[in-house]
Amino acid sequence: MIPSTPGSTTHPSDPDGARRIVVVGGVAGGMSAAARARRLDEHASIVVLEQSDHVSFAGCGLPYQVSGEIAHRDTLLLHSPGSLRASLDLDVRTRHRVTAIDRTARTVIVAAEDGTSELAYDALLLAPGATTVLPPVAGLDHPAVHTLRTIADLDALAARLAGLEAEVAAGRTAPVRAVVVGAGFIGLEAVEALVTRGLSVDVVERADQVLPPLEPDLAPLLADELRDHGVGLHLGTSATAVVPRPAGADHAVALELADGTVLDADVVLVSVGVRPASDLAAAAGLALGERGAIRVDADQRTSDPHVWAVGDAVEVVHAVTGATGPVPLAGPANRQGRRAADSMLGHRTTPQAPVLGTAIVRVFGLTAAVTGPSHATLTSAGVAHEQVRVHAAHHAGWFPGAEPVHVTASFAPDGRLLGAQAVGRAGVDKRIDVLATALRAGLTADDLAELELAYAPPFGAAKDVVNMLGFVAQNVLDGTMPQWHAADLDEVVATSLVLDVRSRDEHAAGHLDGALNVPHTELRERLDEVRAAAAGRPVAVHCASGVRSYLATRVLLAAGLDARNLSGGWLTLTTTPHAARTLEGVPA
Amino acid sequence: MIPSTPGSTTHPSDPDGARRIVVVGGVAGGMSAAARARRLDEHASIVVLEQSDHVSFAGCGLPYQVSGEIAHRDTLLLHSPGSLRASLDLDVRTRHRVTAIDRTARTVIVAAEDGTSELAYDALLLAPGATTVLPPVAGLDHPAVHTLRTIADLDALAARLAGLEAEVAAGRTAPVRAVVVGAGFIGLEAVEALVTRGLSVDVVERADQVLPPLEPDLAPLLADELRDHGVGLHLGTSATAVVPRPAGADHAVALELADGTVLDADVVLVSVGVRPASDLAAAAGLALGERGAIRVDADQRTSDPHVWAVGDAVEVVHAVTGATGPVPLAGPANRQGRRAADSMLGHRTTPQAPVLGTAIVRVFGLTAAVTGPSHATLTSAGVAHEQVRVHAAHHAGWFPGAEPVHVTASFAPDGRLLGAQAVGRAGVDKRIDVLATALRAGLTADDLAELELAYAPPFGAAKDVVNMLGFVAQNVLDGTMPQWHAADLDEVVATSLVLDVRSRDEHAAGHLDGALNVPHTELRERLDEVRAAAAGRPVAVHCASGVRSYLATRVLLAAGLDARNLSGGWLTLTTTPHAARTLEGVPA
Repeated sequence: MIPSTPGSTTHPSDPDGARRIVVVGGVAGGMSAAARARRLDEHASIVVLEQSDHVSFAGCGLPYQVSGEIAHRDTLLLHSPGSLRASLDLDVRTRHRVTAIDRTARTVIVAAEDGTSELAYDALLLAPGATTVLPPVAGLDHPAVHTLRTIADLDALAARLAGLEAEVAAGRTAPVRAVVVGAGFIGLEAVEALVTRGLSVDVVERADQVLPPLEPDLAPLLADELRDHGVGLHLGTSATAVVPRPAGADHAVALELADGTVLDADVVLVSVGVRPASDLAAAAGLALGERGAIRVDADQRTSDPHVWAVGDAVEVVHAVTGATGPVPLAGPANRQGRRAADSMLGHRTTPQAPVLGTAIVRVFGLTAAVTGPSHATLTSAGVAHEQVRVHAAHHAGWFPGAEPVHVTASFAPDGRLLGAQAVGRAGVDKRIDVLATALRAGLTADDLAELELAYAPPFGAAKDVVNMLGFVAQNVLDGTMPQWHAADLDEVVATSLVLDVRSRDEHAAGHLDGALNVPHTELRERLDEVRAAAAGRPVAVHCASGVRSYLATRVLLAAGLDARNLSGGWLTLTTTPHAARTLEGVPA
Repeated sequence: MIPSTPGSTTHPSDPDGARRIVVVGGVAGGMSAAARARRLDEHASIVVLEQSDHVSFAGCGLPYQVSGEIAHRDTLLLHSPGSLRASLDLDVRTRHRVTAIDRTARTVIVAAEDGTSELAYDALLLAPGATTVLPPVAGLDHPAVHTLRTIADLDALAARLAGLEAEVAAGRTAPVRAVVVGAGFIGLEAVEALVTRGLSVDVVERADQVLPPLEPDLAPLLADELRDHGVGLHLGTSATAVVPRPAGADHAVALELADGTVLDADVVLVSVGVRPASDLAAAAGLALGERGAIRVDADQRTSDPHVWAVGDAVEVVHAVTGATGPVPLAGPANRQGRRAADSMLGHRTTPQAPVLGTAIVRVFGLTAAVTGPSHATLTSAGVAHEQVRVHAAHHAGWFPGAEPVHVTASFAPDGRLLGAQAVGRAGVDKRIDVLATALRAGLTADDLAELELAYAPPFGAAKDVVNMLGFVAQNVLDGTMPQWHAADLDEVVATSLVLDVRSRDEHAAGHLDGALNVPHTELRERLDEVRAAAAGRPVAVHCASGVRSYLATRVLLAAGLDARNLSGGWLTLTTTPHAARTLEGVPA
């Protein structure tokens, strides 16, 4: 709640004693806070100061307006100062930039077209958002170079695309080419949008894979989908310079990459990330976290009891690892805004829980989604875990249209779910939402096995993907099914008998050198053969997805052999970067 | 685990000392148990006795084979005795019916074509399933009358439909007519299937609504969808007789209803429910529950330590209410089978949690799903709760293709979620699965508000339907938003000022008699008018879905008026049976 301020003389309260709430930033978190504040206090003076032309716009919709999937740009403008005045009695001022905070006087300095003014507050909410990071690339000031975070960015990009389309209409023969720098969530949305818009698109990503937060064994599925839609991938390299082409050339610029590649481009879209817009807070002496985000408590209050902060500019605690840093996601921003309003108005608050970082992206026909930390994040945080993989149909396999959901999840030794990721053509969002809920609730492999999810053939399976994940995790954790991982392929091949229990036809279509093929239905009668081939070595079993090889592993263990099952099977082997290189030349 | 049986002389163990496991019933629960038992014990003797011709068939797929959506009948036959022998070394015997259990001797008596035999067991698993209940209707032995639970049922119905289609091909002019008796989950799937197959379909349901487990304010949405697809609804009545028509008549039979209606039919499909097939267990003296289901402990063990039971025939404990009874659902059956195998083989078990009864059905373009008890069930069990309703878009409203998800949920006074139901054209399965997970985990309204679900515009919203449900429940439970319910319309109208805060156009298109229309954007300036009209009475506010009226309720409360918001708004009012009758004659 706003601290009482007896004897304050710097500025009088409103004549009628109403609370004065000033909100800096009028998009997701700021506008959620302002709206909630009005609903809780009909009499407060609530002023929202927004430096751009627009408040409450749908930033997440920008790529879909570029593609044309959202036909009209104004669809993204959800509210206007007028509608917010009418509905919520908010005083919303666009093109008003706060240049300084005087925390002692409890005023903000506001720069607008008509000059600079001072505005007093009892409670100040900072929702400045984030700003686009520009990588160290020469020539980024060229008009072909764009970013995509604001309506102004959208308008500039739309104007450029319209100009290029006019050239095509006027007889331009060179294809219109775009390069997207950065293959993260937004970068991939932009790639999809530009391809849908008809451009020829390349994407450059410094990491060795697209969508760096995704598990390395899932990312290649996205890469294939991008290639299947004609996108050129440049992974493990970065842009170094934008070089203008002379007038009359086929393309506006050449983008030079660190690996020597030169890409023609008419549009360069930079999407390598954002950083907290915390300069104002820093200048006011508010405490920041290590990564430059505004430090807040569980009620969104900053180090100044009269100042709250929300959204992309604030520091959150990440679930499982306890790491701190900003998280530029719309969902948390909205809920933080609501919480900040509750806090400043003395309403019961729901303290912020650690953030899972749940995120999702559509890339043409595929969906990729994550919740909680990845294997790499857990490993670097020193959190003990087992990785578990399932490839299971999104609904009953015998019902038409079943599509595999590829899930990779991590579990603590005590069974707790720690994080999960999934890729597929259908049902991915549902499974990640269920797993995000399970993660928030601290559920275990046992709980996932027992979840009672909605089943009719068009929607799921009697044993849903999530149940299967629980079953497999139970088997791994309690020792029923020891497993090996594709990432350890070299070591495993060097020390084990590889036993391929797929059918002869599957084996013939592609297999590991030296693997013994015994279809799982023949294993019981050919046990002696396997034992002889193993010659005292462990047996590394695999099939296509891990199901038949699980049965085989059980048979081998019962026969006294040291058997392990390949997590995720051949499907995972062929998408795990290191193992996939080993398999080069093997038919798919 | 199987009790040790020192000194047993009734029947010797297998020569090699292997455990002898006998499974009665080879579909969902029985086959899950047999397969898990093999995976845990390579050396056990496992015999599965199935009285029908088929094991491991996809019973939930039957309606979709009737419709033709699953093109081939054999798609439903997931495994055969041969494939189960090859893969899992199971001894599966179809057309083997167990006629008695000798629990002292630990043998079962088996009747087969080649005579009767005796089979010894160390562990017996009963998975007899359920049998179709036939209502007290005269003439059900007519060949036009069918049920749909087994492959034999499917074959008989398929033959009848083929015969009718042959008649049409040969020039039959009368439409082929079907009546489905029972509008539960399976009945509605059958209705959809028969309409898709090209039949003219009526449905008869004793309850006043379709899908009786569904909240009364959601069921009319399904009824409209059925009518839109040409289905004749006969609610609140029941079939009394199937009367054969003379040879040469247009239709095979007439179905007489209690309300005097007579329906022509060429096919009558009876789907009024099932009852546990517990006769064998009862005859063996095993303990049954009040509703005739086999009583088991949390490890699926019956009152005899050598006998386990699973599936539709066993009693479960229902979540929230603690009521006991059978639950004929595939998911629980499969997991019970796994658990029973774990238990009999001394593996760590996951004790069965109370059952939520999560279920889902597709009815043409609509989906309806439930998890946990309904308002009626909670009320009759004496569980205090608040009902909360949300109509929210399944993904960002500004993204093309947004469809409303209509959710009705119940919360305990302390905030715990107790049950939820949803109807809509998209995203219903996802929300019910998230809510089923939340219900299992004991999450509260606060937790739902804070759930971090996957958001990108094609998949959800920054404030997802489930978050919104949490927000509304928080506001209801902490008094921020007092509400009233459509079911109490008469009382509310008699004692309150009804304030309609929709736009003038919406109001003109249909409204409650005597309602004062003040669009919510005008409310602040017309407060005096509202106060005068209220004349000391409470103000019952509503809009279309409950959002604008929430804002209005806050304004009125701040002005000192006794204001309440209509849960679910006009949308719920028009689908709540009692209120809808009051509204008769009001344009939609």
